Order: sequence, then C-alpha cells, then structure tokens
Amino acid sequence: MAQQQYLVVGSGFAGSVLARRLAQEQNARVTILEKRDHIAGNMYDAYDQAGVLVHRYGPHILVLNRADCFQFLSRFTDWTYYEHRVLTEIDGIQVPLPINFTSIRTLFPPLQAQEIIDLLLETYGEHAQIPILELRKNQSPLIQDFAGFVYRKVFLDYTTKMWDLDPTQVDPSVTARIPVRLSYDSRHFLQKYQYMPKEGYTKLFERMLDHPNIQVQLNTNAVDHLQLKGGRVYLDGSRYKGGVIYTGPVDELLGYRYGELPYRSLHFQWETWQRDHIQASPVLNWPDKRPATRRTEMKRLTQQEIPGVTTTLTEIPGAYSRGDAVFGEPYYPIVNDQCQGQYERYARELENYPQITLVGRLAEYRYYNMEAVICRAFQIYEELCQPKESGGIA
Amino acid sequence: MAQQQYLVVGSGFAGSVLARRLAQEQNARVTILEKRDHIAGNMYDAYDQAGVLVHRYGPHILVLNRADCFQFLSRFTDWTYYEHRVLTEIDGIQVPLPINFTSIRTLFPPLQAQEIIDLLLETYGEHAQIPILELRKNQSPLIQDFAGFVYRKVFLDYTTKMWDLDPTQVDPSVTARIPVRLSYDSRHFLQKYQYMPKEGYTKLFERMLDHPNIQVQLNTNAVDHLQLKGGRVYLDGSRYKGGVIYTGPVDELLGYRYGELPYRSLHFQWETWQRDHIQASPVLNWPDKRPATRRTEMKRLTQQEIPGVTTTLTEIPGAYSRGDAVFGEPYYPIVNDQCQGQYERYARELENYPQITLVGRLAEYRYYNMEAVICRAFQIYEELCQPKESGGIA
Repeated sequence: MAQQQYLVVGSGFAGSVLARRLAQEQNARVTILEKRDHIAGNMYDAYDQAGVLVHRYGPHILVLNRADCFQFLSRFTDWTYYEHRVLTEIDGIQVPLPINFTSIRTLFPPLQAQEIIDLLLETYGEHAQIPILELRKNQSPLIQDFAGFVYRKVFLDYTTKMWDLDPTQVDPSVTARIPVRLSYDSRHFLQKYQYMPKEGYTKLFERMLDHPNIQVQLNTNAVDHLQLKGGRVYLDGSRYKGGVIYTGPVDELLGYRYGELPYRSLHFQWETWQRDHIQASPVLNWPDKRPATRRTEMKRLTQQEIPGVTTTLTEIPGAYSRGDAVFGEPYYPIVNDQCQGQYERYARELENYPQITLVGRLAEYRYYNMEAVICRAFQIYEELCQPKESGGIA
Repeated sequence: MAQQQYLVVGSGFAGSVLARRLAQEQNARVTILEKRDHIAGNMYDAYDQAGVLVHRYGPHILVLNRADCFQFLSRFTDWTYYEHRVLTEIDGIQVPLPINFTSIRTLFPPLQAQEIIDLLLETYGEHAQIPILELRKNQSPLIQDFAGFVYRKVFLDYTTKMWDLDPTQVDPSVTARIPVRLSYDSRHFLQKYQYMPKEGYTKLFERMLDHPNIQVQLNTNAVDHLQLKGGRVYLDGSRYKGGVIYTGPVDELLGYRYGELPYRSLHFQWETWQRDHIQASPVLNWPDKRPATRRTEMKRLTQQEIPGVTTTLTEIPGAYSRGDAVFGEPYYPIVNDQCQGQYERYARELENYPQITLVGRLAEYRYYNMEAVICRAFQIYEELCQPKESGGIA
C-alpha cells in the first residue's frame, strides 16, 4: 500500500495533533502549510525584550479532564502545575471570577454576605455552579438582588463589549462558562489537569511536529495554492489526491461566496512596567464600560521570577474586519443561529470534497476550548483511519 | 447596691473583652493593669518606619465561627475581608498549607498526583480533613508513601524546632491543627468569619476599652502590687475586695512556688526590603532544619498598597527563659500531661482565692486561639454575672 499523504492547513492544536498522529501512527507523509511565520497557532509564545515568556495571542491556559489528551501532550513536554486565577474589578474592588464565596464576602458587608451565602447553600447545595441566567430566575428577593447585582456588575458590560451583544442575546453556553460558584475554590477552572508546559507552548509544538514524516512550510497561505473545482482538489494547478486537513476559515477557502462569516477580533496592547508585579492575579477583568476587557500579567502565567520588570497584555475586542490593521484577525466565531446558518452553507458545499476535513475553531466555526479541539482532532483521527484499517494490511 | 469593682490584669482579648462587658453591661468600675507600654496584648499592631502596619508579636488572623463573637467585635471596628494563606517550602517548592490537592499536584508528577488524589477521595470522601497522624495509619502503600512524605517534609522538622518535641510526642490536638485537606480550598482557615479590622487591632482595642467605667494603667506589672495571703487579696498592702481577672502567668502570681511553668518563646527578626513584595503569601513556612519557622510579609496581611518597600517578620522559636533578652516572653504553653500537672498545682492553690478568675492562654495555660479566648471570656462573663443577677435588683 502506498504511503498516505496529507496536507494540513494551519499548525494550531487541530492541525498539529492530527499531523503528529497521522505521521507517527499511520506512517503518513504530512505537509503543513502555515500562513504565519511561526507554528503553534494562537498558542504561540516567545520571549520578549524584558525576558518574559509571553503568549502572543492572549493568555492560553491548558485545562483538561481527559487523561488520554493529557498523556498525548505529555510526550512532548514536562509540566508545571498551574492554577489559573482571574480577578474582576467591581467598583474598584478586585474579587475572584467566577464569583464565589470569597467574592461575596469581599463585596458585601459581613452579615449580609453571610445571609446570601446561607441562602444560596440552602437553595442549591454546596459546591453547586449556577449560570447567572438561571440564578436570575430565583424568586427569593435576597437572591434576586444578588443575582441582579452580579448580572449588572459582572456580565452586562463585559458581554456587550466582548460580543457586541446583550448577555441575554448571547448563546447561554457562553455566559454559562462563568457561573456563580458556591464554594471558596478560587481557581478559575475546575478541570483535573491544569498545567503549563514547562518550556512554553511553542516548544511543545516544536516537539510535536518534530517527526521525519512531517514537513512544515511557514509563511504559506494555503488558499493561494489550493483550488476547489467539481469535487476535486488542485494544488498549484495539479490534481491533489491526498487528504486535506483544513483548520482555517471556511469562507476564505470558498472565496467568500456566501458572504464573510462574522467573527470577534482583539486588539493587543503590550506594556512593560518597571515593577515586580502589576496585579495580584494572572488575569484582571474589567467588566465596565472602558474598551478593554482584561489585562494579563504574563509573568504570572509562566511563573518566571524576574524582579523589577513585568509585561502585560491588554485586550480590546472589536468586530473582525478582513485586512484591517487593528481587528484583522478572526479569533472568536459568534455563537448564534444566524451565523450558524451561514456557516452551514459553506460546510454543505465542502461536503462535495470528501478529501477535505474541516477541524477547529475557524474551520468548524465553533467556540472550542483547547481540550475540546484536541478531543475533536482525536475523533477526526479515528474517523480518518477507520476505513483504511478495515481495508488495510490486517 | 454598690458599684462592682474589677481589677483586670492584662489587656489582651481575655482582659479587654471582660473589661468592656463588665463596664458596659454591669456598670462595673474596671481598672486594667497592663505590664507593657501598650494595650491589646499580642494583638498589638503599629506602623513601622516604612509605613507598613505591622503585627508586633507575629501574624494575628482573626477567624471565627460564632456570630455572637463577631457581632461583639463589630461594635468596635469595620472589617476588610481577608483570607489567610500560608505557603510551605518543600525542597525549594512552595505549596499551600494545609497540604491540599494543589500542594499534591505541585509536588508530584501529574499522573502520580492524580493517583494519590483519586485514592484519597475514594478512602475519605471529598472535602475531608485528615490529621497527619491518622493518615499515617492508612495501610495502602500509595497513601503510606504519601503520608510518610508529608510527615517527614512538613511536620517533623517544623514541630521539632517549634516545640522541641517529635510530632508524635506533641499533643495530637496540636498536629491536628494542620490536617491534609481533600480539596482545592487553599485558605489556611475554614471558619465562617475571616476578616481583618479595617484600621488594625490596636484601634479595635482602643475603642473596646474606650468606656467611662474603664481605666487603663500601662507600664504596670500587677504582681508588684498584688499580694495573696490566706485566701485574701491585697493591693499595695490594703485589702482588695473587688474581683480580679487575671490573664498573666499563674506561676508569677504565686512567686513560682511550684517551679516555673515551661513555655515556648519566639525571637522576632524584622527586615525591610526595597521590593514591592518578597513572597507570594502572607506567611511562608520553612519546615526544614533552619532555625526559623516562618516569615510573614506584613503588607499582605494588612493589604496595604505601598510600592517599592515591604516589611517582613521572621520567627525563631526557643525555650522561654525568664529575663532572657531573646526568649524572655512566654508565648505558647506546652500541651502535655506533665506541664498540665504542674499547672494544676497553681490553679488549685488559686481556688483558695475566689475573688480571682484566671482567663486566657497564660493564666489557664491553654493553647487558645483568638476565637476560643473570646468565647472563654464570654463564658467567664456569664459565670461572674450569674450570682449577682439572682441576688440583685430583680
């Protein structure tokens, strides 16, 4: 049997995980086309001039529940245990996010805080996690007041500037990402595996892609080289018969024929401070009307000990606009029926090209987190290998 | 009925709480004799030259479960919510104390940590708190190893230098203060009410003692003025018929006639650093063979924002030795049968003086925490008032 051949478009988690598994476990020959001048997609990190290892596309925290995902990644990196913490600033006071008992006790006078906590525990039980939209349905006046406060102070402005939508218009799965938590656990995430790759994400990806069957071409925009016609895929004009793993935007692949898919984008503002630290947590959220949503102190993510200097990244969201100097990168698909419908037109058309597999946040137009996209890549891997195995050497 | 009269020896929590309640609720006339040049006992705090509010006698964290205690103190102060955190340094790595899941995940490789956590949860259930001496009785080899590690690394050297005793010789109630905790709750304490007095402890005590019926005499060692003879109390040679609330050492009160009671003492080392912060937690423990047990960064207790400078207190324990320049203050009674027996001789002798009531860590030779001593003062107050009420104006 001839060696299988794959073209992988994009070297983020979706592309890189599939490339590695196909190359190693199927002995496939894999070429990765990467538009940017580096691998690792938005997970890319690098040292800045202050010596701080910074996440170039915003803070990336790898949290996993699945042991198989974690074990796979562990082949390419050692880990440092890392608990992500987010503080959100409400009327000048910084409290843990998700809002938990610590937040409540910091925001309300002692005896009122005790009343709220007692009633929440009585209603929902210890360690419950209540989405804010559900909490607002509670009829008790005390919880009504409390839920209204949290909705106004934590969700309303933040969601509006992040998505340009009112929280009630955003898909409930998005607001449910940040529930109200009935405990003192002030970790931002609750997943089993919470670790930072010891030498950073880029190193992890370098090792993942370091395989004799994998070839990476940087600075290569695949859509300039791929042509799709009549169910057939052409590469620089010649018929291409291998598999194509596409992790870029689907509308670009099909020349925007059904209109541009909307995304939210981010403007990144970098600052270096002559201070040991600038904030008490890795991420500080501003759920108010200022344009920025949050600031990340990178040293707190990487746990580097560099006295006297620290680097921060402030994020300002805006509508993605192709070619724009500020908001020209598509980061977040928008989760609602209309956008989903538009995406489906692209996806359905691409079903005519069975060689092409769509994977990842952009290609599937889904708000995957890191674990979800790795799991999705695993699932795609199984699907790709199934028919070959049944007709293969066994 | 004549106005009751009380002599209160010492102005720590025991003395001050009783003074206030007797003065205000019984309209008693209270004179406080305080040996030091300030009120508030070991809770005393003051601003140092760097502008940091420092706890002069080591970190004092007020944690309470009883609403009545909290409400009483709330009459004299506003509060700031404060969660105490302690990191302990094990082989150069700092982890939360009590040892919890975060500590385990930081100290052990990911998959081994997962195994330990899974087995602990299976054996003891979520959110359990297991004293180390109990954990060591577990027969599972994995937990045996883990408990042995924690015992050697966290308890053995620390307890030895703190108490000059092996952990197995210390009263189990002492080691049980720091259990192994089966959760990610990294607060040091779990009590309901965890707050710092907004303007510090001294201010709280000032307001508590600010009552027309209370008079405070600083720099006055009560034992120089009190004589006990034949069941009668004399004050500077004259018969004293009021009540005496004694919160000092009992052996001193009786001229050490049954030998000096042993205590542990502390040597305090103050340092000022030209840094925003010097450590990641208010208290950093060193459970190894170096003489110091822990270092407190005071700014993290008081939550002051003072850039560029910070003050720390390092504590070195030693045997209390009366009159010694270094270890001349008795801080911790020693919890064991022999010392308790010696104390009882003093206590029994003082039963001949029904005017005198012993309250607090020194006078009762008990390792009270702050809540326990306030509760004890409340209880004593009830006992003192009971007979008067029954024979009183009602």
